[in-house]
Amino acid sequence: MQPAPPALSRPCSASSTDQPGRFLLPIRVYYEDTDAAGVVYYANYLRFCERARTEWLRRLGYGQQAMLAGEGTAFVVRSVQADYLLPARLDDALTVVTRVDTLRRASILFHQDVRRDDELLFTARVLVACIDWHKQKPAAIPAAMHAHLESQA
Amino acid sequence: MQPAPPALSRPCSASSTDQPGRFLLPIRVYYEDTDAAGVVYYANYLRFCERARTEWLRRLGYGQQAMLAGEGTAFVVRSVQADYLLPARLDDALTVVTRVDTLRRASILFHQDVRRDDELLFTARVLVACIDWHKQKPAAIPAAMHAHLESQA
Amino acid sequence: MQPAPPALSRPCSASSTDQPGRFLLPIRVYYEDTDAAGVVYYANYLRFCERARTEWLRRLGYGQQAMLAGEGTAFVVRSVQADYLLPARLDDALTVVTRVDTLRRASILFHQDVRRDDELLFTARVLVACIDWHKQKPAAIPAAMHAHLESQA
Amino acid sequence: MQPAPPALSRPCSASSTDQPGRFLLPIRVYYEDTDAAGVVYYANYLRFCERARTEWLRRLGYGQQAMLAGEGTAFVVRSVQADYLLPARLDDALTVVTRVDTLRRASILFHQDVRRDDELLFTARVLVACIDWHKQKPAAIPAAMHAHLESQA
Repeated sequence: MQPAPPALSRPCSASSTDQPGRFLLPIRVYYEDTDAAGVVYYANYLRFCERARTEWLRRLGYGQQAMLAGEGTAFVVRSVQADYLLPARLDDALTVVTRVDTLRRASILFHQDVRRDDELLFTARVLVACIDWHKQKPAAIPAAMHAHLESQA
Repeated sequence: MQPAPPALSRPCSASSTDQPGRFLLPIRVYYEDTDAAGVVYYANYLRFCERARTEWLRRLGYGQQAMLAGEGTAFVVRSVQADYLLPARLDDALTVVTRVDTLRRASILFHQDVRRDDELLFTARVLVACIDWHKQKPAAIPAAMHAHLESQA
Repeated sequence: MQPAPPALSRPCSASSTDQPGRFLLPIRVYYEDTDAAGVVYYANYLRFCERARTEWLRRLGYGQQAMLAGEGTAFVVRSVQADYLLPARLDDALTVVTRVDTLRRASILFHQDVRRDDELLFTARVLVACIDWHKQKPAAIPAAMHAHLESQA
Repeated sequence: MQPAPPALSRPCSASSTDQPGRFLLPIRVYYEDTDAAGVVYYANYLRFCERARTEWLRRLGYGQQAMLAGEGTAFVVRSVQADYLLPARLDDALTVVTRVDTLRRASILFHQDVRRDDELLFTARVLVACIDWHKQKPAAIPAAMHAHLESQA
């Protein structure tokens, strides 16, 4: 599969991998993420997690726009199991820790945590399926990408 | 417990109850809810569900601002289990169907579906806990409110 | 131009017109609209205004999806001049008042206010241009629509 | 005025100043920022700009939470004049360029551009006023901060 064009494939400079299989993305909490209860609004943790999955993919050399234009495939979220443990607040410096829990032929189960230093604020299992975008039907993860992801585990 | 002030307690005129225990809130999909994939962005279903829980509470005579000012209690989301079945799109007229799955002393487990006519697009179980806002500790749902909610089942 | 399909063209039942040329859309403020300062986050007034423009168009019989599929035209925002006068808060029942300030061959200048009862919270002039979506170039507002809009003034 | 606590004052590592008075913040466009038209939703440019103003302030040593806790002052947006020139898209690597246009006793007029390489996509003048948060009345920008900001011009 073709790599994404240079600008689009440049990974977030702030992201990192501290152990094999663990991808870290820093997130700063801004006013837009918070609500009148003084904490990060519950739906916004899912935005942080999606950014992390996108950057994880980008770091491996894949862009979602390129996947669509090339193979005609896309990743869509099928399910989310999330637990809210402690609240994040304005100005917090968070880290989204992303791991692949299970890699299947046509899906990836991610385990994603949102941490503030050594505190676990939020944890989720997110099942993402590969689909043929035009047919809107399940499709296998492209073979080269699947092999590459397997080697990362 | 004191009811919320008039303006704040006026329930959404478009909401309704079609069966005992089932609360319906219509939702129109606008550009702000969609993403470049042409569908409602996955985190936004949680916003629709929160609006429905708030309107369900308001219809029963309770406002979250009043709970905080009065009893000093608040409802916070503890967990979400969600399945994404079919995509919603721009201009769709959706309905959030909300039911109480389990009412406990200090928590409510909601079952919420997002439907488009007779199609089920999204379904979730959302566990909401009552807390003493100032102490940030679990608290019992105020007795009068708990009795009222029990009578609704 | 063809009207939008029935479901998509059903206007928001809560919207209304209290004077010729004035379109009203009620908006309830939810947690998702607020921030840690306890008020509606400044960018969110633009979301309220976009919903109102969409419902104004829908009430006149036009859906943006249908415009794109039919004429291949779309409306895009070219400029916003906005003043923030008073803050809106959680649970507020607001009204977006929308008027057409100026209708031109290829653009519409809207005047939109966000009110809470008789208080003016926010006011904006929003210039929206009609474009040929595929060419991404200016296009005249479709003649039948333009004539219809002129008759509304 | 007291500096913000360490973690909260750590500026975004990706931000920079390329010329005196010009503050740059990189922004990556994610799915959450886009809409079904395939571009960044118009209100979201205001979110990018607010992040840039916050990081500009943080780089100078000031946190908004600390201002509130210390001096009891806050910055609120009074007006926005924005022009939308070219659309940003999913995966774009943008830069928000922030300059102080005018520094007054109780307000700051920012000039903020959103660029993609050498293309200007969006430009805005944002007037931000300092207020006494508890009295919700205008207040002078704290003297030490004002002097510091003047020296940056």
